[in-house]
Amino acid sequence: MNRIIKTVTDEYKSTLDTFVKRNIEILGENLVGIYLHGSATLGCFNPNISDLDLIIVINSNISDQIMKLARRIKMQENKYDHPLFFEKYSQMERSKNGLAGAGEWETLKRILPKFQNKHVLDLGCGYGWHCIYAMEKGASSVIGVDLSQKMLEVAKQKTKFKEVEYICQSIEDVEFPIDSFDIIISSLVFHYISDYKALIKKIYQMLKPGGELVFTLEHPIYTAHGSQDWYYNEAGEKAHFPLDHYFYEGKRETTFLGEKVLKQHRTLTTYLNTLILAGFTIQQVVEPVPSDNMLHDPEMKNELRRPMMLIVSAIK
Amino acid sequence: MNRIIKTVTDEYKSTLDTFVKRNIEILGENLVGIYLHGSATLGCFNPNISDLDLIIVINSNISDQIMKLARRIKMQENKYDHPLFFEKYSQMERSKNGLAGAGEWETLKRILPKFQNKHVLDLGCGYGWHCIYAMEKGASSVIGVDLSQKMLEVAKQKTKFKEVEYICQSIEDVEFPIDSFDIIISSLVFHYISDYKALIKKIYQMLKPGGELVFTLEHPIYTAHGSQDWYYNEAGEKAHFPLDHYFYEGKRETTFLGEKVLKQHRTLTTYLNTLILAGFTIQQVVEPVPSDNMLHDPEMKNELRRPMMLIVSAIK
Repeated sequence: MNRIIKTVTDEYKSTLDTFVKRNIEILGENLVGIYLHGSATLGCFNPNISDLDLIIVINSNISDQIMKLARRIKMQENKYDHPLFFEKYSQMERSKNGLAGAGEWETLKRILPKFQNKHVLDLGCGYGWHCIYAMEKGASSVIGVDLSQKMLEVAKQKTKFKEVEYICQSIEDVEFPIDSFDIIISSLVFHYISDYKALIKKIYQMLKPGGELVFTLEHPIYTAHGSQDWYYNEAGEKAHFPLDHYFYEGKRETTFLGEKVLKQHRTLTTYLNTLILAGFTIQQVVEPVPSDNMLHDPEMKNELRRPMMLIVSAIK
Repeated sequence: MNRIIKTVTDEYKSTLDTFVKRNIEILGENLVGIYLHGSATLGCFNPNISDLDLIIVINSNISDQIMKLARRIKMQENKYDHPLFFEKYSQMERSKNGLAGAGEWETLKRILPKFQNKHVLDLGCGYGWHCIYAMEKGASSVIGVDLSQKMLEVAKQKTKFKEVEYICQSIEDVEFPIDSFDIIISSLVFHYISDYKALIKKIYQMLKPGGELVFTLEHPIYTAHGSQDWYYNEAGEKAHFPLDHYFYEGKRETTFLGEKVLKQHRTLTTYLNTLILAGFTIQQVVEPVPSDNMLHDPEMKNELRRPMMLIVSAIK
């Protein structure tokens, strides 16, 4: 309950604050959004279909267009373009060392299809590591899509292949003709997506027959509880990883690099059966573990105590 | 370290106890079995291939035959034939009320294939509920296999169909010609099996092309930690479910109906990819939740907090 997309002028601030607090008191977690016109409530967002924490729109007519816009603002809201967050992210191992710095890379590499002469789409390409890798392995073309302008700037600097095109766009807005790609990949993005089913349907259409989708995501076990942190005993040791709320799908507010980040929790059932119902055949389901050369780090060894990621390979 | 298959005469007991204790001190968890001939150690079980906690065989020549026998004793060791355990099990909802008493039944029912005119094998059939159900749905024949003589006695009493045959055998010892069955089902048994890969290979061979395997098992998340119990806060409330040791596959000693029971933990990766590598196509992966009419029970509502079971449907 801390997000204000567009706020009032100062003179109304105090009145509005009281109003919002009162609504929070009454509605608690059911309050997802408030529309104001002057000081009158016009409606609340439906928590089942919206990701918004709080929207306040004043002194304008509330039209469908504005509601739609308001929804998109949140869906496309992008931590990776915040300067502080971007700075922290760029200091992570996986940002500094590329694929070799990612614990799951050795496993993912074995699962990725052959890129030779293939047309590839990378949804949420970030720094473009996978786009570059696909080109190095002989891909004909790669399109990398990411919402973060800052990430794409880095990607463009790193990429020497002219066959790679970067597009700054929400992956939910991606539109390509049917049968456009041989391979679609996506790394650690699907747990941010609000409408997974619609995205999978769209991916299925964009893939050629026999085309392959390979994606990684945060494991449903990792997203379920919400804290994404260990349960510590009195000595401050990692006693175990807590699991809760598993069958309650929906948003989870968690902390990543000290910033609040909104993720979507879904069950394994939803992730896999949505693919199957869309027409895909599942080729592999793998929970990666860090490669041996990373396990000298005691922190990495904790990764053997609970699954954090899931890699899924499916064929059209 | 508490299982003695055949013990010594009283006069040797004290000497033997000292010897065993000393071995436990030295070998710790690496000690899985001890052979004695008189009071001399002849060998230790390999912890990687045996489920035995401790075997002591005395005053006889240790032959391959005995070693083989000793291994089998443990594999086929069957809680369900212990009078007290059997009594407790028979008081469970799922035992008294059959399929309707099982939380997963409504989900499983939707996943099961059509039985009309099909030859069916039920691995670990217990009271025969699923065998009877298959016949009611028009199966041509059903073979139910279970290691528990007591369970099969009840199954035989319940079953009115002459086309059902019950066999008292470990499901790991089942042998049928290739392409024998249209459908193989197994309910809550695979997490007891030592060699899952070998079993899946055998099932694949026994199924006709296009034949289907549907099985339920305890969810890897449920078997990982070992306790299979909630983590309770100071007020004695179920705070969350603990997860640990996930990527350490192998045996877990847990408590079921007040008795110690040995289960096998495997990752989701192992369960699914073993099927795929054997040649199966995965049709459905479902984590069942209790049906609505069961959720009035607060205890059942806790089942929405973590996955306890997994249902997998695969086709040859």
